[in-house]
Amino acid sequence: MREAYHEELSSISEGLVEMANQVGSAIGRATTALLDADLTLAEGVISGDDSVDVLHRDLENRAIAVLARQQPVATDLRVVVTSLRMSADLERCGDLAQHVAKLARMRFPEPAVPRELHGTILEMGQLAQRLMAQACEVILTQDVDAALRLEQDDDRMDELHRMVFHHLLDDQWQHGVEAAVDVALVGRYYERFADHAVSVARRVVYLVTGQRMKQTVTDERVTA
Amino acid sequence: MREAYHEELSSISEGLVEMANQVGSAIGRATTALLDADLTLAEGVISGDDSVDVLHRDLENRAIAVLARQQPVATDLRVVVTSLRMSADLERCGDLAQHVAKLARMRFPEPAVPRELHGTILEMGQLAQRLMAQACEVILTQDVDAALRLEQDDDRMDELHRMVFHHLLDDQWQHGVEAAVDVALVGRYYERFADHAVSVARRVVYLVTGQRMKQTVTDERVTA
Repeated sequence: MREAYHEELSSISEGLVEMANQVGSAIGRATTALLDADLTLAEGVISGDDSVDVLHRDLENRAIAVLARQQPVATDLRVVVTSLRMSADLERCGDLAQHVAKLARMRFPEPAVPRELHGTILEMGQLAQRLMAQACEVILTQDVDAALRLEQDDDRMDELHRMVFHHLLDDQWQHGVEAAVDVALVGRYYERFADHAVSVARRVVYLVTGQRMKQTVTDERVTA
Repeated sequence: MREAYHEELSSISEGLVEMANQVGSAIGRATTALLDADLTLAEGVISGDDSVDVLHRDLENRAIAVLARQQPVATDLRVVVTSLRMSADLERCGDLAQHVAKLARMRFPEPAVPRELHGTILEMGQLAQRLMAQACEVILTQDVDAALRLEQDDDRMDELHRMVFHHLLDDQWQHGVEAAVDVALVGRYYERFADHAVSVARRVVYLVTGQRMKQTVTDERVTA
């Protein structure tokens, strides 16, 4: 029974890694679609989210099957329950990548993001993708130090999020209300994506060390 | 053992009802704080979210303890796992109510919402509170028809959300970019709150009937 249990557990872990890979790729492609006004790429991200949802559903069913068949206790039980939560985080990241792509599609053939914000949004997109790659590594290696580095990169995301808002609310903003609302929502999507990636890493740390990492409290609306 | 199990299960269910009550009240008070620029009320909602988080943590621990001690299978197992998910939905609703209150605090003593949108935002706030009360009733009664009514009220929320965006992007908008961004984010907070309330009800229906309710796919950004 222990061997069967560990096989099932490792298949759940593989499912999480596959989800993390897919949503990491999705946020990268969604960012390109947004900045280049690339409709084909946007459509690909939007339809590709179904595959993440299928992985999520499948992983939930397998986790519940493990609970029913193996009836794990103590640490083993926490591993399975935590996997369910990580799967929910990753599924939500897929939704957020899809939202970015939908915005690109909605504004096509116009670009949704004004030229002078391209650099900042590109950095947010790349950072989101990198955070997810790191979260994926943390799942695979259970490396607590790597999880801590993730927190630092997330601080940079919060800083970029603040910069976007300062720019939006600057008197020099010349792109009107619609573009401001688009950019505010996009900024929020990246910030939420990063939060979920950090959350995945924190859950792994909790499993490994039994210690909850300190939750950084950031105001959602970061402007003063 | 069965009796102990049902006692523990019923205590988990009571925890969910208590969380639903607290976040329903929080979104109502946050709405008043937002529309009346009431700082004391806003501070109360912001600090009160700790209590929701404690309930959430406590409920998670009890659910895991039930899994460990009672090792439920089949339907019983799904009930416990589903409770974990409902708790996560409700915890997120608490965060969203807190975001609305934080916006009221950030703009104080100015009101964050222009006068002509007060009616729409008030309706969104009341609807959010009502949806949560209905979700709470569904948890208590497991009434599938009540869950279906919830879906209809959520359609109204989506309609209000669309109305807010149309107003924001109207050429007549005279409140500048900052107010537009505030209102766009507030609209999203209510819409997300409603989605989580509906999600709670859907999970109950799934437990009772074994059927997943059709998920209404709505674009996140509802403007054309």
